[in-house]
Amino acid sequence: MRQNPHGGDIYTKKCRVDFSVNVNPLGAPESVKEAVRKSAESVEQYPDALCRDLTRALSEKEQLPEENILFANGAAELIFALTQALRPKKALIAAPGFAEYEAALSAAGCFIRMYPLQKEKGFLLQDDFCDDLTDDLDLVFLCNPNNPTGLTIPQELLLKILDNCRERNIYLVLDECFIEFLPEPEKVTMQGKLDEYPNLLILRAFTKIYAMPGLRLGYLLCSDEDLLDRISRSMQSWNVSIPAQMAGLAALNEDAYVKEARELIGKERAWMKAELEKAGLTVWDSCANYLFFEGPKGLAARLEKGGILIRDCSNYPGLADGYYRAAVRTHEENQILTEAVSQILQWF
Amino acid sequence: MRQNPHGGDIYTKKCRVDFSVNVNPLGAPESVKEAVRKSAESVEQYPDALCRDLTRALSEKEQLPEENILFANGAAELIFALTQALRPKKALIAAPGFAEYEAALSAAGCFIRMYPLQKEKGFLLQDDFCDDLTDDLDLVFLCNPNNPTGLTIPQELLLKILDNCRERNIYLVLDECFIEFLPEPEKVTMQGKLDEYPNLLILRAFTKIYAMPGLRLGYLLCSDEDLLDRISRSMQSWNVSIPAQMAGLAALNEDAYVKEARELIGKERAWMKAELEKAGLTVWDSCANYLFFEGPKGLAARLEKGGILIRDCSNYPGLADGYYRAAVRTHEENQILTEAVSQILQWF
Repeated sequence: MRQNPHGGDIYTKKCRVDFSVNVNPLGAPESVKEAVRKSAESVEQYPDALCRDLTRALSEKEQLPEENILFANGAAELIFALTQALRPKKALIAAPGFAEYEAALSAAGCFIRMYPLQKEKGFLLQDDFCDDLTDDLDLVFLCNPNNPTGLTIPQELLLKILDNCRERNIYLVLDECFIEFLPEPEKVTMQGKLDEYPNLLILRAFTKIYAMPGLRLGYLLCSDEDLLDRISRSMQSWNVSIPAQMAGLAALNEDAYVKEARELIGKERAWMKAELEKAGLTVWDSCANYLFFEGPKGLAARLEKGGILIRDCSNYPGLADGYYRAAVRTHEENQILTEAVSQILQWF
Repeated sequence: MRQNPHGGDIYTKKCRVDFSVNVNPLGAPESVKEAVRKSAESVEQYPDALCRDLTRALSEKEQLPEENILFANGAAELIFALTQALRPKKALIAAPGFAEYEAALSAAGCFIRMYPLQKEKGFLLQDDFCDDLTDDLDLVFLCNPNNPTGLTIPQELLLKILDNCRERNIYLVLDECFIEFLPEPEKVTMQGKLDEYPNLLILRAFTKIYAMPGLRLGYLLCSDEDLLDRISRSMQSWNVSIPAQMAGLAALNEDAYVKEARELIGKERAWMKAELEKAGLTVWDSCANYLFFEGPKGLAARLEKGGILIRDCSNYPGLADGYYRAAVRTHEENQILTEAVSQILQWF
């Protein structure tokens, strides 16, 4: 039986406000929607298999060589494609983490080693992660900021990990899909280290920051052009649809919108965290556009009765019942969540 | 250097009429375009990972169990996904054939055996194909009608191949992406044989018959539910975008449009074949929405000077310079091609 283990299942659940997916609370920019409407006239054409306009635009914006960029049908497709292309025998992932790493590695028949992010250590990646970077590893996945915790990896530790990986011929896939929500992403991204570390693969998404998960658009950054070429050859020729390519081009001009979202999220996250703590939950120090917290079992199911969806994290490896993730949304929406939580907790 | 070996590259070539891609000459139905325009309001949601509405609608229309249907981001994604899931060691394909079979098998490190479709035998699949179905094979790709020739496989031979494959535990992937253009597809499809042959995987596309290649939508039919589940697990969770799902639902109601396209193509193909033969080309007996022919080297390049794109087939395995494929389009467009060809051939 096929199943979807993720959030965002508004197709079977009654939904008033969806905190179970982590997209920009401002909604998709009008220019993105307009690009989709316009794309209706181009559906009779095959998409540009090489996403040339989009690659050129991103290259200019991010000051990166076009040859270091590979677009795909969402970052999730790249997780599978790079795994298929690299054919790792042994990989290391941190738990809890995004479920698609494990899914892609399992599908490729790869042995998976789990580094447990411990509650006692605040779910933070520790220096001893480097001890786990042994010669038998082929691939490591890390998410920065992490999903579902929203915590970032200390810069110094990340550089140490990169050094260790390069020395041991281990590929490091750094998932920066939520990095655009940080107040200063440029201080956290490892984008500037691509040339120094040809074993570094950075994953990015348009999905989250431009609130366009329905369109599917993500990309991979890597300075090893032969490797990007191999990864592209493990995908079909026309994986990125025309609506996604046109919307992506429009999105790249939306700097003011991104700035506004960062400000809103910074403010709202602090407010929401304080309110949820007041209600009695344990909330971690997320830097991203979502909050990770611990509370009574069954909280998600109770909220769902009122049409409020949060992400029950009990199916994340390394987590049990009672862990949740909720997106930071607009103030009005966040109030609906915090008030509901505080009412429910009164009677638990 | 990443490259696109296919037709439809209107992004680098000056194009007046594009005969290099094989989509419905009527263009996308208005209902499909309208669905895309409407989908602009839903891009903020994740797509339904299980494509439930679309699966239900197709199941009803085709009278097939929902469990036997798997949607994807174009049939091309399924070629890669099933190859990754089955992990074949040795596969058999017929040449000339669609390039993505070889691309997917190569990416998976599979040894590829080629069955040559011979010019002397009219490029038709012969009975001796069965001699090639040896126990060491894991997977066979066949395309019916074939691309680029447009020729169908005799029904009796196809059933014999299916029997042989079942007996030897070989999966047969039957690509029926162009079958909807035949006058009576129901007489050619192997859809009714799915239960009898759990080793049969049928590929279908919305791309061609509904002229929506820019949106990416295809599906796989198979009665082995565990196998479909394994294939789905070798792809990301949200591979089919919301515009594609909404457009697909609209397309399934377009029976009158499909009928009109079949009639137009039947008439135009006969006319176009006669005209191209009159001009001096050797044209094969295609049953599909495209014609395969032999002519002077450099014909495609000359036509391109006038903004007319046809598919130069010299990069198909088994073909050399001088083989071409052109889509059957509207009468006005077909006239542009046939007149240009006959003018060029006068001076060759």
